[in-house]
Amino acid sequence: MSNIIVQKFGGTSVGSVERIDAVADIIKNASLSEKIVVVVSAMSGETNKLVSLAKHFGDNPDKREFDALVSTGETISSALLTMALHSKGVKARSFSATQISMKTTSTYSKAKILDVDSNKIMSVIENDTIPIITGFQGVTETGDITTLGRGGSDTTAVAIAAQINAKRCDIYTDVDGIYTTDPKIVSNAKKLDSITMEEMLELAGQGAKVIQTRAVEFANKYKVPVRVLSSFNEGSGTLISLEDKGMENALVSGIAFQKNQVKVTLHGVEDTPGTAFKILGPISDAEIEVDVIVQNVSVDGKTDFTFTVSTEDQEAIKGIIEDINQKIEFKDLIIDSEIAKVSLVGVGMRSQSGVASKTFKALSENDVNIQIISTSEIKITMVIKEDEVDKAVQVLHKEFELDK
Amino acid sequence: MSNIIVQKFGGTSVGSVERIDAVADIIKNASLSEKIVVVVSAMSGETNKLVSLAKHFGDNPDKREFDALVSTGETISSALLTMALHSKGVKARSFSATQISMKTTSTYSKAKILDVDSNKIMSVIENDTIPIITGFQGVTETGDITTLGRGGSDTTAVAIAAQINAKRCDIYTDVDGIYTTDPKIVSNAKKLDSITMEEMLELAGQGAKVIQTRAVEFANKYKVPVRVLSSFNEGSGTLISLEDKGMENALVSGIAFQKNQVKVTLHGVEDTPGTAFKILGPISDAEIEVDVIVQNVSVDGKTDFTFTVSTEDQEAIKGIIEDINQKIEFKDLIIDSEIAKVSLVGVGMRSQSGVASKTFKALSENDVNIQIISTSEIKITMVIKEDEVDKAVQVLHKEFELDK
Repeated sequence: MSNIIVQKFGGTSVGSVERIDAVADIIKNASLSEKIVVVVSAMSGETNKLVSLAKHFGDNPDKREFDALVSTGETISSALLTMALHSKGVKARSFSATQISMKTTSTYSKAKILDVDSNKIMSVIENDTIPIITGFQGVTETGDITTLGRGGSDTTAVAIAAQINAKRCDIYTDVDGIYTTDPKIVSNAKKLDSITMEEMLELAGQGAKVIQTRAVEFANKYKVPVRVLSSFNEGSGTLISLEDKGMENALVSGIAFQKNQVKVTLHGVEDTPGTAFKILGPISDAEIEVDVIVQNVSVDGKTDFTFTVSTEDQEAIKGIIEDINQKIEFKDLIIDSEIAKVSLVGVGMRSQSGVASKTFKALSENDVNIQIISTSEIKITMVIKEDEVDKAVQVLHKEFELDK
Repeated sequence: MSNIIVQKFGGTSVGSVERIDAVADIIKNASLSEKIVVVVSAMSGETNKLVSLAKHFGDNPDKREFDALVSTGETISSALLTMALHSKGVKARSFSATQISMKTTSTYSKAKILDVDSNKIMSVIENDTIPIITGFQGVTETGDITTLGRGGSDTTAVAIAAQINAKRCDIYTDVDGIYTTDPKIVSNAKKLDSITMEEMLELAGQGAKVIQTRAVEFANKYKVPVRVLSSFNEGSGTLISLEDKGMENALVSGIAFQKNQVKVTLHGVEDTPGTAFKILGPISDAEIEVDVIVQNVSVDGKTDFTFTVSTEDQEAIKGIIEDINQKIEFKDLIIDSEIAKVSLVGVGMRSQSGVASKTFKALSENDVNIQIISTSEIKITMVIKEDEVDKAVQVLHKEFELDK
C-alpha cells in the first residue's frame, strides 16, 4: 500500500470561487503530511445549467454529444482548483479523463470504468505535484468522452485510489459524516465514527445518500478504505472500514428511511413458475428500480405479488402493468402512494437474534402498523404509512440506544 | 482540390441557443449542395465569464491551466451545435482539438498550429456526417490543452481548410463583409465583393478587424480562398481572393483607420549605426507592437526617431525609454496621444502613380494636416490629428470614388 490519500470534493464543496479557495486550504494542509491526489466534481449548478442548454434542442439529445457537453463542468473546476492551489504556493496540475486515460465502456451517461493510467498519476506525484483530476468524466478506446452518471465522481475517486493502491479515499461533502439516522427527524442522532462497507451499502441504497452506491461497491471490491467528511466543518467524518469489527459490532448501526414511495400489489395472481419474471422483467427493461419485493404464500393456487417503486415511476408502472395484464391474469391492481420504507441496518444482526422481534414490539407499542417486512442478513426493511415514518424512526432510534 | 467547404462561426453567431439554431439552418442548407466541415467559437460572453472566474485566483494564472479552462467554451458550443443539427435531421458529430489531433506548439495562450489529423476529418465526411470542430483549441504532443489566442478560431478554420484542401473557407461573422471604410463614418461606404489577400492583410492589420490577421496570412501561405459573410443576414459577403486581378484593380480598395494611438518621438538622436535597434529592441522584447516607424534625414549627425503605439502601451513605453536613455542620448522625448492613423489600401497603387499626391492634395484642400507619411507598395499610411479622422476618411472615400 502506498502512502497516498485520494481526496474527492463534490459540487457543493467547490460551488463558488470562495469554496474552491477553502478546498485549496484543505488540500494544502493535508499535503504537508501526506501525498495527495485530488478528484473534483463540477461546481454545483454548472451541470444543471449545461443540461438546460441541451434541452433547447430536444428532450433526447445524442448521448455522445450530451456527455461531451456536461463533462466540461469538471474541466472547469479542476483548472480553477489548480489555480487556487498555485495562488497558495502549492504545486498542482489539472488532468482530464483523456489526459490520465480514464478508460470506460462506451455506454454514454452511464459508462463503467475499465482502466486508469496510474503511471501518469504516479509520475506527477513523484514530481511533488498534486494531480487535480476531473471526476465523472471518462474516455472510450476511440477517444470519445463519456460520463459515469450522476454522482460518478465518487466512483472516479475510489477507482483511482484502488489503481494507485492508496492508503485511503476521503470523500468530502456537505455533511459531517454518516449519522445513526437523519438528525432532522431525531435531534440526538449520532455521527458514527466508523461503519462497515456492508452497512454502508445498505444505508446508501436507502435514504442516506452521502456517497454513491457504486463507489461503495467499488471500494468493497478493491478493499479501499473510504472516509466521508465535511469540507465545510472540521472533523474526522465517518470511516467506512474494511474489517468486520466482530464482537464489538453494534446490533443496529443506523436507521435509514425513504419517503416518496409507492406500493404496488397485484392481487390474486396465478402462482405458476415464471410469474415473478413476467412481472419484473418488463419493469426492469424500462429501467425502473424495484425494491422490497414480497410474494405471500399461495392460497388456492393464487398469490399476492407486492413491490415498491419511487413515486416518480408511478405513471410508468401503470402502463407497464396494463401490458403485463395481456400475458398473466390477476384480480386487482392496488397502488398505495401513502407509504414509506424504514430500514434498520447493522452487521451485528447477523450473529444476534431478537432484533426483529424487538423492532416489531416497539413499533406495535407505539401504534405503528407494519404493512410489509423484508429482511436480509444485515437489514430489516419495513413498509409503513408515510405519516408515521418520523415517529417510527424516533421510536427505533431510542429502542436501540443509537443516541448513546 | 476537394469539393469541401469549411464554415467557421464566431462567438456572436452562436451567442444564444436561438442563434445556434439559426446557424444549424445555415449549415443544413449549405450541406444540401456541398460537403461541409464546421469550426465553431465559444458562445459570446462564455470565454469572458471563464476568464473572470480565473481572476479570483490572481492576475497571472498558470497558462496551462488557463488554456484548459477557457477551451471549454468551444467544447460546449460544438456539442450544442451538433445537437441542434440532429434536431433538424442532419448527421453531425462534435470533435475537440484532442479528438482530431489539432497539434500545436506548447506556447500556451498563443500556440501555433503544427498539424491536423485530416484522415480523421475525411473519414467523418465520407460517412456523410458533418464534423463540428472546436475552434481556438489545440493540443500539444504530450496531450496538454492549448489555445491559439483571441480570434484563433479563424486560424483553426483556415488551417483545416488548408489541410483537407478545401474549396473555400467561409468565415461567418456579424458583419456583411469588408467595406470600403467604416459605414459609421461614411454612410455610403460600399461592401466589396472581393478583395485581394494582400489588401486584406493591410486592412486587417489596421482597424478593419473582421478576420484575424494570422488567419489571412495562413490563407495566403496555403492558397485557401476565404469568404467573409454574415450569419445574421443573407448575402454573398466578401471573397478574399488569391488572384491579383491585374488591370481591373481598383486604385484604392478601402480606407482603414485606427484611433487610440500614441505618437512617440525621440528628438535629437545620435545618428549612428544600431540606433534603431537599440530603441526598438527593448520595445519588441516587451511585446509592444510598433507601427509607422519613421526616421528623418540626419542634420548635423542628429536625427528624429518617431513611431506609433497603441494608447494602452503608453505608460509601458515611458518606462522602457527611460531605460534606453541609459544607453543612447537624445534631446527630448515627445509623446502625443491626440493622433490617429489613416491608411489607403489597394493593389492598384503598385502599377499606378499619383495616389499619394492625389491624397495629399485632397487632405490639404480640406485643412487636414499630415504629420507623418509612411508608404508600402499597396498602402499609404498617414498620421493625423485624432479629431480630424472622420473628415479625412470622408474626403478620401469621395476623392477615390469608393461609393461608386
